[in-house]
Amino acid sequence: VVWVFIEPEALADGQLRVSGAKAHHLARVLRVRPGERGVAVCEGLAHQFTVLTVEGDRVTAEVEGVSPVGSEPSRPITLLQALLPHTDFDAVLEAGTEMGISRFVPVKAERAVGRAGPDRLPRWRAILESAAEQSHRGAIPAIEAPMELSAALRSVTSMRLLALDPDGTEPLPRQPSDEPIAIAVGPEGGWSAAELAAMTAAGASRVTLGPRILRARLAAVAAAAILVQ
Amino acid sequence: VVWVFIEPEALADGQLRVSGAKAHHLARVLRVRPGERGVAVCEGLAHQFTVLTVEGDRVTAEVEGVSPVGSEPSRPITLLQALLPHTDFDAVLEAGTEMGISRFVPVKAERAVGRAGPDRLPRWRAILESAAEQSHRGAIPAIEAPMELSAALRSVTSMRLLALDPDGTEPLPRQPSDEPIAIAVGPEGGWSAAELAAMTAAGASRVTLGPRILRARLAAVAAAAILVQ
Repeated sequence: VVWVFIEPEALADGQLRVSGAKAHHLARVLRVRPGERGVAVCEGLAHQFTVLTVEGDRVTAEVEGVSPVGSEPSRPITLLQALLPHTDFDAVLEAGTEMGISRFVPVKAERAVGRAGPDRLPRWRAILESAAEQSHRGAIPAIEAPMELSAALRSVTSMRLLALDPDGTEPLPRQPSDEPIAIAVGPEGGWSAAELAAMTAAGASRVTLGPRILRARLAAVAAAAILVQ
Repeated sequence: VVWVFIEPEALADGQLRVSGAKAHHLARVLRVRPGERGVAVCEGLAHQFTVLTVEGDRVTAEVEGVSPVGSEPSRPITLLQALLPHTDFDAVLEAGTEMGISRFVPVKAERAVGRAGPDRLPRWRAILESAAEQSHRGAIPAIEAPMELSAALRSVTSMRLLALDPDGTEPLPRQPSDEPIAIAVGPEGGWSAAELAAMTAAGASRVTLGPRILRARLAAVAAAAILVQ
């Protein structure tokens, strides 16, 4: 089943009309054909459709039913992820989206190897949209421009905050809950003492995934798997 | 800290003496130098050492202490993983080792895209050893030659068996436990109806990681993260 996110303007009179880059993606990459069925997601609703016509870069489809999307986690998870080398950071965005993360906040950590500015945002957003479509999410996760840790902490003051720390003693909370949660995952070299102190001052619990050493690109994914259950 | 697995023969008279491929790895890849500290793991014991000499492909070190390794999960997890394309299967071995999986059983599933014979074993073992060293495991996970599902199921009859199935209704068991567990993860196209029936007949529970669609290479890692907690 084709799964795409669409703008509200694409829906009118019981039909779906797509043009531009999204239609190009449907027609040329996914190669949809008349008669093919799919799901178009818009503002939390899944519109079941059957393709009517594919002409150049225009796709039209008949909408046959609408229902709420059931695939969003009940607990919103925000990931404060220290910048990593590009390949690793992209892998965290892709796998984190599949796992159900709601919002990504790239953090300029002291020991971060990767550097990235707001110019990475278009690429990051494309990765998030593609991963959200492949995993049949109900929404594309949000992502911010890279920011200092202090700013990142100010953006999650209303949430329960967890700082992943190999020297932490608490395990991740295991009870299912709808409480919004923010988890901070450091770079390959870990958070600095000053960064850990800043997070503790902001109310963070220092949690661990256990005694094994995880590569940075795996840590956020493992944490999300546990938190989203 | 350098972390290596060694054979019992390398230990004698309070010293560690390594030659051959392992010494080459220490001297040329990890570039250890006299005075550097590390941990050599053998049969569940961690030997803390300080390097004395590095000469050609021979490394000697003084053993300064011995203690049990504390990084093995209390619950042994066996992963029955359907064969995947090589890159994906290798990624599962690497990440699964970091997560704490004890034993890998490659399964020739009906819908498996990847093909592999026993000739892949040397490469797979090298990946497992390297990942176990990087994640500071207390043991290198075991791996079998690829086998049919029926044979794989016969190898885990004493364990609680979980079959990962997107249409399953049970979540993964969340309670911490020492009970050995086997989890079967299918190929990108999922287990066939006949395979699911065979697993159910073998006593398997059909479990799900939730409503989102995970790539096959991510599913085992997410499941291990939850089970190992």
